[in-house]
Amino acid sequence: MSETKKTNIILFSGDYDKAMAAYIIANGAAAYDHEVTIFHTFWGLNALRKDENITVKKNFVEKMFGKMMPRGANKMGISKMNFAGFGPKMIKDVMKKHNAVPLPDLIEMAQEQEINLVACTMTMDLLGLQKEELLDEIEYAGVAAYLADAENGNVNLFI
Amino acid sequence: MSETKKTNIILFSGDYDKAMAAYIIANGAAAYDHEVTIFHTFWGLNALRKDENITVKKNFVEKMFGKMMPRGANKMGISKMNFAGFGPKMIKDVMKKHNAVPLPDLIEMAQEQEINLVACTMTMDLLGLQKEELLDEIEYAGVAAYLADAENGNVNLFI
Amino acid sequence: MSETKKTNIILFSGDYDKAMAAYIIANGAAAYDHEVTIFHTFWGLNALRKDENITVKKNFVEKMFGKMMPRGANKMGISKMNFAGFGPKMIKDVMKKHNAVPLPDLIEMAQEQEINLVACTMTMDLLGLQKEELLDEIEYAGVAAYLADAENGNVNLFI
Repeated sequence: MSETKKTNIILFSGDYDKAMAAYIIANGAAAYDHEVTIFHTFWGLNALRKDENITVKKNFVEKMFGKMMPRGANKMGISKMNFAGFGPKMIKDVMKKHNAVPLPDLIEMAQEQEINLVACTMTMDLLGLQKEELLDEIEYAGVAAYLADAENGNVNLFI
Repeated sequence: MSETKKTNIILFSGDYDKAMAAYIIANGAAAYDHEVTIFHTFWGLNALRKDENITVKKNFVEKMFGKMMPRGANKMGISKMNFAGFGPKMIKDVMKKHNAVPLPDLIEMAQEQEINLVACTMTMDLLGLQKEELLDEIEYAGVAAYLADAENGNVNLFI
Repeated sequence: MSETKKTNIILFSGDYDKAMAAYIIANGAAAYDHEVTIFHTFWGLNALRKDENITVKKNFVEKMFGKMMPRGANKMGISKMNFAGFGPKMIKDVMKKHNAVPLPDLIEMAQEQEINLVACTMTMDLLGLQKEELLDEIEYAGVAAYLADAENGNVNLFI
């Protein structure tokens, strides 16, 4: 078959290390000419947040969510050994030492490789996140669009 | 191809938000005429527990597990920002405000859409859960049945 | 079709219960004549560590990681109800009572069934784990090898 292979990743997790795994697989698949989509839902949306504070109109609970959730990839915690915030720093130090690519750069690389970065509109509504707060040049869709991609996918993962 | 597409989800997690994601994808896939199965294993089994206390004969450790694990979908905690139980309430409040469907209703909807809800018999045995404690009209199976479904699945996810 | 079915599992998690689920599915798939690969990345690598202390040359941060991470499958914690280390013991007790197979035996069984156990070389480098510290007769590969397997896989899971 000469058809294009497809990789579809749901990024549900808001953990730095899990998001890294998602973006490493995605960038690898794109390098192998897969058509790649990362569908960011629930806490995974935080990877797409801009790191500056964007002023948008929100109600009280939405403001709280906005403050409590990490603002962008670089502020996310890790799933294991978080050690009151010490863990992510250690991971990042060790990554720098080994010339590993940090998450924000992996996301930029994904955009350069034309990976479809999708924000789940249902979650945005639920957590009160608005388009202005998310990275530019991403797409917005719901579970129906995910399923339309995934049902023909070669590699489907929930991370 | 005019074959029926298949979605097979393993729900391993006992988190309210992850179970929501599983049931939202499952209900979406069923709406798109997929044949859908959710295989509930380990902590995911808690989503299928009845919320009342069912008296069945158990040994000491089984009783402890029974008490410590959440009794039904509505009592499950969330994976992030649990904040000593404050998180799930906030999520549920925000869901109510946005007319999002809460987990117990998503499960009911799944049953109406004839999604196969399967309880992993190995886990039931391990945790001492008995059929009387779980929702009616679900199925009971092991890993062999899961694999028979999944090997022909279009969308296979582990949540 | 008479082609061999393929199951490819990424084991990212370092939790005892999630690793158990991965190995139960993998052993089941191998019993059904699937060609099975478990790709161990990030914390999932700990399942492949030997349980004795192996002396290898490491820098300070690598030594810290080495000490903080569980040394082998038997020392891994569980994802829920860890209760300061009490949870894993309870799970193991209950498993023994029900003649369930503990994780180290599941791994041995996987090796006997010729399941490909792969250690992610990028993670090894990152965490400073060396071949001497990991089980014998495993393979070493990166994300490219994973994708080459997974793009033709029937059951692809991220655990």
